Amino acid sequence: MFAVEVRDHIMVAHSLPSPVFGPAQGMHGATFIVDAAFFTEDLDRHGLVVDIGLAIEALGATLAPLRYRNLDEVPEFAGKFTTTEFLCRYVFDALAGAIAAGRLNDGGRVRRMRVQLHESHTARAWYEADL
Amino acid sequence: MFAVEVRDHIMVAHSLPSPVFGPAQGMHGATFIVDAAFFTEDLDRHGLVVDIGLAIEALGATLAPLRYRNLDEVPEFAGKFTTTEFLCRYVFDALAGAIAAGRLNDGGRVRRMRVQLHESHTARAWYEADL
Amino acid sequence: MFAVEVRDHIMVAHSLPSPVFGPAQGMHGATFIVDAAFFTEDLDRHGLVVDIGLAIEALGATLAPLRYRNLDEVPEFAGKFTTTEFLCRYVFDALAGAIAAGRLNDGGRVRRMRVQLHESHTARAWYEADL
Amino acid sequence: MFAVEVRDHIMVAHSLPSPVFGPAQGMHGATFIVDAAFFTEDLDRHGLVVDIGLAIEALGATLAPLRYRNLDEVPEFAGKFTTTEFLCRYVFDALAGAIAAGRLNDGGRVRRMRVQLHESHTARAWYEADL
Amino acid sequence: MFAVEVRDHIMVAHSLPSPVFGPAQGMHGATFIVDAAFFTEDLDRHGLVVDIGLAIEALGATLAPLRYRNLDEVPEFAGKFTTTEFLCRYVFDALAGAIAAGRLNDGGRVRRMRVQLHESHTARAWYEADL
Amino acid sequence: MFAVEVRDHIMVAHSLPSPVFGPAQGMHGATFIVDAAFFTEDLDRHGLVVDIGLAIEALGATLAPLRYRNLDEVPEFAGKFTTTEFLCRYVFDALAGAIAAGRLNDGGRVRRMRVQLHESHTARAWYEADL
Repeated sequence: MFAVEVRDHIMVAHSLPSPVFGPAQGMHGATFIVDAAFFTEDLDRHGLVVDIGLAIEALGATLAPLRYRNLDEVPEFAGKFTTTEFLCRYVFDALAGAIAAGRLNDGGRVRRMRVQLHESHTARAWYEADL
Repeated sequence: MFAVEVRDHIMVAHSLPSPVFGPAQGMHGATFIVDAAFFTEDLDRHGLVVDIGLAIEALGATLAPLRYRNLDEVPEFAGKFTTTEFLCRYVFDALAGAIAAGRLNDGGRVRRMRVQLHESHTARAWYEADL
Repeated sequence: MFAVEVRDHIMVAHSLPSPVFGPAQGMHGATFIVDAAFFTEDLDRHGLVVDIGLAIEALGATLAPLRYRNLDEVPEFAGKFTTTEFLCRYVFDALAGAIAAGRLNDGGRVRRMRVQLHESHTARAWYEADL
Repeated sequence: MFAVEVRDHIMVAHSLPSPVFGPAQGMHGATFIVDAAFFTEDLDRHGLVVDIGLAIEALGATLAPLRYRNLDEVPEFAGKFTTTEFLCRYVFDALAGAIAAGRLNDGGRVRRMRVQLHESHTARAWYEADL
Repeated sequence: MFAVEVRDHIMVAHSLPSPVFGPAQGMHGATFIVDAAFFTEDLDRHGLVVDIGLAIEALGATLAPLRYRNLDEVPEFAGKFTTTEFLCRYVFDALAGAIAAGRLNDGGRVRRMRVQLHESHTARAWYEADL
Repeated sequence: MFAVEVRDHIMVAHSLPSPVFGPAQGMHGATFIVDAAFFTEDLDRHGLVVDIGLAIEALGATLAPLRYRNLDEVPEFAGKFTTTEFLCRYVFDALAGAIAAGRLNDGGRVRRMRVQLHESHTARAWYEADL
């Protein structure tokens, strides 16, 4: 299988209000470096998995509502723990929606995605699934 | 599938006593940067793959007996070639044992692991398998 | 599954002559950092996936005809768009040929490969498949 | 001149309440990867710039009050803009105090420091000065 | 001294037509990851070295005429060897001009700059000087 | 000032036989990623700091006697603590000798060097001085 992966990042605040999170229960924050990978079985006639410019735009548009935000105040995250893993899935679903809406102009060729968030130089999470 | 990956490292000596290893037959050493990834199908009710603090502790405990060691003197490696690949499997098995013993407190949710050792900026190995 | 991955790089010029490529239609270039991963089910009796020295040599020999080249002038790329994805597949096929020719001396153990090209710190592509 | 540099990180929230900061005025956050470098003219009789274990401890102790914190609530930052540059200086001063208090046990040999904070894969700041 | 550094990149073709350059004499190319560091003695009243947004814009504007270009066809490079070192100086001078023209709005506070180009994971060059 | 920096690595064993080194007293090892930077005031008529091919060769030749070695058995290190800092200076002096012997063919233009050894993803050392 082929894949193309592009990178962007966000800088956000959030709290993780459960004793499970120990020192991270209170308001703190993170730079999340976000890698989004798009998988296809074959290349198109231009030798592409997807148009990398459209992929970068789609990732940027997905992250735009989160940039420089306090995630505790983002309505759709109400009642959720915005862990790194949770955010992987959120970005995955948003990108899947963008693909379904034709924003990658891929003619249904993208079959699988992986969204990875690096929270530091020593920890990261990802979600990978078929579309 | 979801994954969380954490990083640690060890600095060890060893020899690889077979002509197959050419210049690496004699006593030499390596810094191994170790990435351990834990895979689950779903997130738990706190939005977690696993408790990242427990994951870091489990990896640290697994690596502790190897830190600053000459692997040629580690009894359980007697008669083995302690290649990067071999060590990936060793760390994998030790972490699998820790999970089986409940040290990640994951309720049997971890389904798969990948253990990766970077031996330099140009070479690495990994072992990935279902639990 | 086990894997060993080695890294090399090439510095090439090329053009991508279709309006699809926007600003990259004309002659430009790239440093491609190339990671080749070799997968086996088991380790051999020396604890190896493959002989890492042979893997580095095979990757180097595969990249040699591309080093410091204008890909527009490489005969076998005539009429092709030499995208990052396309080059992943080209290197994959060349390495698969080298393995089939016995250059990794792996006794048919390599079952799968992944070839990854990093075109910048924010974009990369790969091709992964069974042999 | 000789130097030894060690790395740690913090994950913090903060706001930068001035129109100068545009989208970063409100509550957001960052992972700061922190590198602290210690410079000496010569090595001691054990071939060391400083005891690296003490350096790591001193950096960890300096960062401890900031880990998982909302910097807007840290009393000594009241009325300050906690920019990346500002935090470089804060960590520098705290480490300089630790050295002056003998926590690196360096016998006055550390002559200069550099503290660097990486806020993302594309931006970082540092402060470097003689002690 | 304080510094802030921002990163961008360009993907260019060029030739280095002298026997001195061996295999790199002909048309080839590079991804140059470009780091521009700005140094000031002190922070301004907002705790800044320079406005990082303006720094990113200035670097982007400086690199714009080189993006996806064949440097052999850039008029101001006629008769020059566009080595990595040469390009460091070119970007440095262009950024110095932008600062002199007030584009960083720094009130003359930037005293020094360093421009670094990474040509691969194993080689880079830089130019650093007072303004 | 201009600089060009090239990277290589070694994988060595050693012991650090003093209580000062705590857990690192016994035989252990390291991968040292080695960066050597060469500084000149100006570029030569080909736009170069130094011939990068010669720089890579000189660094490789300097490291050759250490590759896959037990440093405790290297005669010239007898009675020395082969710390990361010590090795920075050793490589620096060896490269300075190579330059003095004309191996960089730089006509006396290299004025300064920095040799940096990364011992892990969280610690490194360097030595920088005029020639």
